[in-house]
Amino acid sequence: MTHLSSAAQNFQESAIRRTGILGAAVPGLISLAAGYPSPDVFPWDDLESITADLLVKRDGNTLQYGATRGYRPLIEQLIAKTLNDRGITATFEDMIVTTGSQQGLDLVGRVLIDPGDVVLVELPTYSGAIAAFHNLQGQFAGVPQDAEGIDVSALETAIASLKTAGKKAKFIYVTPNFQNPAGLLMSRARRLALLELAKRHDLLILEDDPYGSIYFEDVTTAADTRPIKADDTDGRVIYLGSFSKVLVPGLRVAWLVAPREIAQRIELAKQATDICSSVFDQRIVHGAMDRGVVERIAPELRAHYQAKRSVMEQALQSTLAGRVTWTSPRGGFFLWIELPEGVDDRELFDRALAAKVSFVLGSAFFVDGQGHQFARLSFSGVSHEQITEGISRLAAAIGHG
Amino acid sequence: MTHLSSAAQNFQESAIRRTGILGAAVPGLISLAAGYPSPDVFPWDDLESITADLLVKRDGNTLQYGATRGYRPLIEQLIAKTLNDRGITATFEDMIVTTGSQQGLDLVGRVLIDPGDVVLVELPTYSGAIAAFHNLQGQFAGVPQDAEGIDVSALETAIASLKTAGKKAKFIYVTPNFQNPAGLLMSRARRLALLELAKRHDLLILEDDPYGSIYFEDVTTAADTRPIKADDTDGRVIYLGSFSKVLVPGLRVAWLVAPREIAQRIELAKQATDICSSVFDQRIVHGAMDRGVVERIAPELRAHYQAKRSVMEQALQSTLAGRVTWTSPRGGFFLWIELPEGVDDRELFDRALAAKVSFVLGSAFFVDGQGHQFARLSFSGVSHEQITEGISRLAAAIGHG
Repeated sequence: MTHLSSAAQNFQESAIRRTGILGAAVPGLISLAAGYPSPDVFPWDDLESITADLLVKRDGNTLQYGATRGYRPLIEQLIAKTLNDRGITATFEDMIVTTGSQQGLDLVGRVLIDPGDVVLVELPTYSGAIAAFHNLQGQFAGVPQDAEGIDVSALETAIASLKTAGKKAKFIYVTPNFQNPAGLLMSRARRLALLELAKRHDLLILEDDPYGSIYFEDVTTAADTRPIKADDTDGRVIYLGSFSKVLVPGLRVAWLVAPREIAQRIELAKQATDICSSVFDQRIVHGAMDRGVVERIAPELRAHYQAKRSVMEQALQSTLAGRVTWTSPRGGFFLWIELPEGVDDRELFDRALAAKVSFVLGSAFFVDGQGHQFARLSFSGVSHEQITEGISRLAAAIGHG
Repeated sequence: MTHLSSAAQNFQESAIRRTGILGAAVPGLISLAAGYPSPDVFPWDDLESITADLLVKRDGNTLQYGATRGYRPLIEQLIAKTLNDRGITATFEDMIVTTGSQQGLDLVGRVLIDPGDVVLVELPTYSGAIAAFHNLQGQFAGVPQDAEGIDVSALETAIASLKTAGKKAKFIYVTPNFQNPAGLLMSRARRLALLELAKRHDLLILEDDPYGSIYFEDVTTAADTRPIKADDTDGRVIYLGSFSKVLVPGLRVAWLVAPREIAQRIELAKQATDICSSVFDQRIVHGAMDRGVVERIAPELRAHYQAKRSVMEQALQSTLAGRVTWTSPRGGFFLWIELPEGVDDRELFDRALAAKVSFVLGSAFFVDGQGHQFARLSFSGVSHEQITEGISRLAAAIGHG
């Protein structure tokens, strides 16, 4: 079709989605692929009451077009509570409500990326960010991580190589808290070193933090999750937060904090992109903030996902110990495993589907064509029984390799 | 700031928004600027009951991530009811639910526009479409309209000029039903001529139809609003529909029908843009379709806006007859007036604000820097009393010119 734009001719399909489509065709499948939050911890009673109260008031603004920047009382709650808790200082002019953090990724990309510009990313990194920046005709340079997070000296080398090649890097995209997919928590020292490096090279940092408040209290404290943005003294960090994991994802409400000039550009981009995020959804989320629901359920969420992590680790330990390896996640939704020598994620995926279990290909999270020795397992949306049975099936699939 | 992309350095701010910001600072202002639907015709009782029923079921999928393409039962209702009523044949694979029609404009633009590509638009045309395509670094060629809609021979000339200039036009953007801002209804003959021309030049047509079902029954029938898409036999028309004007805009739910290959690309673009539109909003809208609410309230909406149009025309007649001229709108939300000789929209705007009434500058809807002799007046979101008083104030402002 000759009408397509050059970007559209190369749009990327997310590997997670391909996985989902394949999996959906398998009856009885246990999906360890989808990184969905658990409906068991959705605050149903609160949402029912908040929604009913909103509608009974017959306030036309509840269902009217709203400001592009977002519902002001929601932004004010975020500044006073969430940002304050996380050590971030921001004003209304620094913030934008987005239609999920995926929109944050896209809008930041639109404001910063010219075709051919390079985004520096972790190896592995979130596949949705890869798709967003790729679709904007961005290119990538991948930087390895160790147990403390992104390898800053490798990052330095990557930046030097780009300069030599005459390419332009504009920002570094990182997920310091319980990264999707690798589950890693970046150390405080590493965060500060990254910030220092960004200053030195005049690069922006895009910090994506959907999982920060879902830390596992047996091994982690809130202090360990302090955002890089909290130490940003010169307007170098754009910070993405979301309600998808700490409330519900079906209300598409997330938010970002950016240096004011960038926030203004993002607002213009968003205005032409969807005018505003759902006003009704924003008011429901505001109700949940205002009534303290988000804070109240946070410990329950942490305990819920921590327990699931333990079940998955125990299942792996008892079926695959010594054959697959992993770093125990200290928060979030994911367990990232390295497969036995010689097992390829794509081949394993086919065998796993035959055994009625799915996961996401490790290679889906790499920008350099690598990662075939990894798999992302999600424990968030499945039950304890499904986790145990799913890992048992996975072990059987690996066993046949 | 050197980090901004070249697109972002030239992002356009909507003139409607500028108008709104200026207006918001004026106490006691009557806004004839905002094209908002009236909360008086929101189906509050239905929405309360639909929402309560959805939440009481405790179905996790109601608040979970959803398919990028949209909530399937909603799409099926659209195909069976709305599209069927409008004479359009489509299958699931041709459709995408969008976060408002503004997202439809942006996604279509992303799939079709390379920087420098030309979009053919009506003079005047919807300012949100101008912003969306401009932000994607599209360029414009404007084509005059007469009382029957876009001037097809002028369009032919514009296409020839573009060819001579070595520029590439990919699609024609039109709003045949009660255009925002001019309120025009394109004649059936003109629609067919446009379709024929598009075929001949292998151009796509982007048909935006938010107001089609809000026709004024004293002068118009449903048959007059038959979409161009209904006569599209070779997959040349992309059609945008919306719930913003026929239900509520605060639930961000709109939809589009496109040739399958384009719909697939739009799905990929949307996946990286916001993953999915609000699942909760989509299910509420589905509930409203399923219970026949949208069909039931449609005659009431038509009568409501028709009455307001009459009030505004009477007010204009009694205060400004012979000094401003207009084509009586046969549907929609807007009355487009030509100002007296020598009155400029920008100067009038300042005087109008001083008189505590606002409108949108005519020039905001032109891609060629013209249109300063026009103003867009909206009657949709204001009361009869406000319309009468607003026009009286406007007449006073014009009188001082």
